[in-house]
Amino acid sequence: MRIKLTIEYDGTGFSGFQIQPGLRTVQSELENAIFKATGERSRIVGSGRTDTGVHAIAQVAHFDTNKDLGAKYAHALNYYLPNDVRVLAAERVSQEFHARFSAKSKTYVYVMYERATTSAIYLNRATQVSGKLNVAKMNEAAACFMGKHDFAAFKSAGSDTLTSIRTVLSATVRRRNGMIEFTVSADGFLYNMVRKMAAFLIEVGLGKMDKSDLDGLLDSSKAFTRVAPPEGLYLYKVEY
Amino acid sequence: MRIKLTIEYDGTGFSGFQIQPGLRTVQSELENAIFKATGERSRIVGSGRTDTGVHAIAQVAHFDTNKDLGAKYAHALNYYLPNDVRVLAAERVSQEFHARFSAKSKTYVYVMYERATTSAIYLNRATQVSGKLNVAKMNEAAACFMGKHDFAAFKSAGSDTLTSIRTVLSATVRRRNGMIEFTVSADGFLYNMVRKMAAFLIEVGLGKMDKSDLDGLLDSSKAFTRVAPPEGLYLYKVEY
Repeated sequence: MRIKLTIEYDGTGFSGFQIQPGLRTVQSELENAIFKATGERSRIVGSGRTDTGVHAIAQVAHFDTNKDLGAKYAHALNYYLPNDVRVLAAERVSQEFHARFSAKSKTYVYVMYERATTSAIYLNRATQVSGKLNVAKMNEAAACFMGKHDFAAFKSAGSDTLTSIRTVLSATVRRRNGMIEFTVSADGFLYNMVRKMAAFLIEVGLGKMDKSDLDGLLDSSKAFTRVAPPEGLYLYKVEY
Repeated sequence: MRIKLTIEYDGTGFSGFQIQPGLRTVQSELENAIFKATGERSRIVGSGRTDTGVHAIAQVAHFDTNKDLGAKYAHALNYYLPNDVRVLAAERVSQEFHARFSAKSKTYVYVMYERATTSAIYLNRATQVSGKLNVAKMNEAAACFMGKHDFAAFKSAGSDTLTSIRTVLSATVRRRNGMIEFTVSADGFLYNMVRKMAAFLIEVGLGKMDKSDLDGLLDSSKAFTRVAPPEGLYLYKVEY
């Protein structure tokens, strides 16, 4: 049977989601916990990778197993998982469900705060920006990302995808809870795409760039080389 | 000259504020940073101790020095401090100012969230409560703490104070940013007083106790033995 997991993690202590020999990754912790809970070696398939330091509010993954723990799966896995990874929900799904290929869209949130120095409290959980951000201008520029575009300028080398055309469904910047949040949904994201978008929007917020600069970047063969740091990035939702 | 510092820290990695031989404490990190910045061995005096795992949004401390770094003190100390302690402000004050004895009141915030399992994201930053909290009842009970009372029931052994009479200036419980926050101001606090108040309010929120149970505890010689965990507690403000 196939089990779909909804997973929360603090990315600080992980070398990203995907398994890598000798490194602590979210996937390896999940596979270890599944082995301890079921006695079976199962391979986890995530909706996509997240990098070192990137967090997830609701990452989705699936695995196949012969062990039917029913409603107790989440509890059993949390028992064996370290505290910085939590299974929020576990449910049986059809064999047709695939965490990566069935995903219709994803939402990421990039969280920033304005301060001359880093915050001890938000260390590793949000990105510090020195200087005042013009959130209205950032929000206007974010809206320009919307629609179907070639986002080649907003990817880093290492994207393993055939095309760099993606459809951004929504993109907003707003103040919330004393932070500035960039929230973006798309049918898919290229490698580092959200962090590059966030870096661009920070430039706009600081008045160093303008939304008109997107004219030369979207649907172009140019590259926007800045990448915002990982600690502000949260995988917020995967829709199927 | 005397310098007043306003300090933020994540208490997770510290054995509390106060210096202890062989342990990593906020005070020892501050004194090390002062030594590196000034070349002088100064003793830091905090507004009070915080325990292992307890955080500060704005702890206050003072120290005496012959080195006048002027407006650059905060920057210089932050240069030498680890990232989980930040100096938010440094200002020259009169020799009469004393971080502990001049304090008129303090405000603490205790942050909780309702969830069956702990959160990976709020790990070490807020207290998980299994079950739904009745915040209106918690707020009503919190109001009963207000005024001048003998809080002997709400202290742990180790209070080094002559009297257990304190005046609570305000005490409220509310939902904010998806969390439940207990905010309390008083002219002073006994050892573990806020964490015992928070533990009492959680019992009230879960329907296991009622504000009428305070009748037998406030101004009594009884003891309320529960202590809420440290990770939800933030020293929010010290007023002079």
